[in-house]
Amino acid sequence: MTVTALPFTGRVTLKQGGGGRAMRNLIERIFIREFAEMPFDGVGLAAMDDGAAIPIGDGQYLIVTTDSHVIHPIFFPGGDIGRISISGTVNDLAMMGATRPLGITCGVILEEGFDVAQLEKIQRSLVDTCKEANTVVVTGDTKVMGRGEVDGIVINTTGVAITRRIVRDNGVRPGDKIIVTGTIGDHGLAVMGARHGLDLEGDLVSDVAPINALVNDALEAAGDAIHAMKDPTRGGVSSSLHEMASKSRVGIVIQERAIPLTDAARAAGEILGIDPLHVANEGKALIAVDPEFAARLLGVLRSHPLGRNAAIIGTAVSDRPGSIILDTGFGKRLLAEPDGEPLPRIC
Amino acid sequence: MTVTALPFTGRVTLKQGGGGRAMRNLIERIFIREFAEMPFDGVGLAAMDDGAAIPIGDGQYLIVTTDSHVIHPIFFPGGDIGRISISGTVNDLAMMGATRPLGITCGVILEEGFDVAQLEKIQRSLVDTCKEANTVVVTGDTKVMGRGEVDGIVINTTGVAITRRIVRDNGVRPGDKIIVTGTIGDHGLAVMGARHGLDLEGDLVSDVAPINALVNDALEAAGDAIHAMKDPTRGGVSSSLHEMASKSRVGIVIQERAIPLTDAARAAGEILGIDPLHVANEGKALIAVDPEFAARLLGVLRSHPLGRNAAIIGTAVSDRPGSIILDTGFGKRLLAEPDGEPLPRIC
Repeated sequence: MTVTALPFTGRVTLKQGGGGRAMRNLIERIFIREFAEMPFDGVGLAAMDDGAAIPIGDGQYLIVTTDSHVIHPIFFPGGDIGRISISGTVNDLAMMGATRPLGITCGVILEEGFDVAQLEKIQRSLVDTCKEANTVVVTGDTKVMGRGEVDGIVINTTGVAITRRIVRDNGVRPGDKIIVTGTIGDHGLAVMGARHGLDLEGDLVSDVAPINALVNDALEAAGDAIHAMKDPTRGGVSSSLHEMASKSRVGIVIQERAIPLTDAARAAGEILGIDPLHVANEGKALIAVDPEFAARLLGVLRSHPLGRNAAIIGTAVSDRPGSIILDTGFGKRLLAEPDGEPLPRIC
Repeated sequence: MTVTALPFTGRVTLKQGGGGRAMRNLIERIFIREFAEMPFDGVGLAAMDDGAAIPIGDGQYLIVTTDSHVIHPIFFPGGDIGRISISGTVNDLAMMGATRPLGITCGVILEEGFDVAQLEKIQRSLVDTCKEANTVVVTGDTKVMGRGEVDGIVINTTGVAITRRIVRDNGVRPGDKIIVTGTIGDHGLAVMGARHGLDLEGDLVSDVAPINALVNDALEAAGDAIHAMKDPTRGGVSSSLHEMASKSRVGIVIQERAIPLTDAARAAGEILGIDPLHVANEGKALIAVDPEFAARLLGVLRSHPLGRNAAIIGTAVSDRPGSIILDTGFGKRLLAEPDGEPLPRIC
């Protein structure tokens, strides 16, 4: 891992929280370096995958993922911070191949004066989403900070699960088909719309959902033919594809017209001037699969309610490793990796 | 669990974050109620212990604990927020009987403009404390919030470990001796001193340290004779003893003169008007042990550098369940359970 010549100043910037290259540089330089050098026999911090895999004997791995959730507004069309907290963690576990979460921890930080009725609504959402994902919050922590010390509510969730087979985000092979499990951009655009009070809410709702059952179906149907998975949250499909391509040392050619997009998201993207490829999704997966299994996997995904808009959107190639090539139908162009998120925090 | 007639208003108050009764009410009412009703075969949220224990077969339990760390100042005599984050989580695992952490997750939330040099100092502290505790950060998450949306830095850590024997905080039996593994109040008073710029720093330093090796020695020496453990962090020794007594349905009589206290902590407590019994410790454990094993356990603890001031401070009794009786040497009085922490967040 190269940690030299990073474009660093003496202060952390918002851009470094956006899920793009600037953020990866910050994390690599500050957080990864030394832990990566400490002895650890598994998938650890250095892998920068969706979570860690710790060997616990008998061919089993303990999968652990963590995420801190800050979002404004905390209630938005299609979900809220509670639903995102559980879904995000369940989905990160699923992306590592662990579709049966043993439990989730919940660390809540509240600002003094936070409305208890809102807190109860969020708690209801945590409970309902856990039921949907067939899991439970097993332990938690609550902190209250003074007014102005934290903005409303922050929720950290950590998930644990045990699996025999790990799926990584770095296993894409040339020739693999790239599948997305449904329409993209809905979450980020719905949140942006709600934040700016745009009149988009009617049609445009966040996709936030736990997709562990969908992923379980996929793994049962395609097994080892699934070479890599990643959920396109922060930084969107673009950032996740770049990360998969870069780690796997392949290029990925995307057919722009094959990307599933609702009319509402397309319209919102145009009004807001934001490419749906660059915004967060909270109920989707990118899957790299052996081309021979792609059609079958697509069928399995589409037969699940959360995968009915699944589509093959591209192909991995051996040239231009680390690059994403967008085939617009009129020509091809390189898709730039976002340096920071094009918008403030939405997941 | 009784959840009726709680003294609730419509807004979260700082008192509810203080680790006392007000906080327990908030957590019970909002967070515990429904999760406690969901099927879970282990030590879950309803137990409100230091962490969860999930049965994973073959007589083994996966222990999971989580904690969000907010502290001002982030650097204080004897430690910093990085050292607290790792120690707190390692110690919570140890309190459940799991003294060999498999790994720790680290979710960092930064305020825009946070000084990168400070971040590197904190990271160094995270690494060093992990080495001391013989563990490693296995996965993480970084978020950057705008200026004023979060105050500096918040770190959430979650720890995982596997054990065959769980220690609970509700197993105290009448007749048990209560041991504290060293001097009390040092952390909370040192942080308060630093915050107010009092000239106490020379002698008074936080006790923050991972004590899993010490606890491991204790468990190896006393085994099943250890009936309960708890680390007296938020709310201090007083709050932890109240929780142990209440859950175990015993009273606990404490000999005030037996409580180990440095001269510096005693002086600071007097200057600040704060009882060391009520402030957080970050490198101590309360242990309830069969009286026949107490002397032997004390010897083992005292032979470890982190336990050299260990002392037997009290005895559990069958009357007055849930109460802590302070024997001052001149008479006995009930120790009030703090309703909220007597001071702002220090752990």
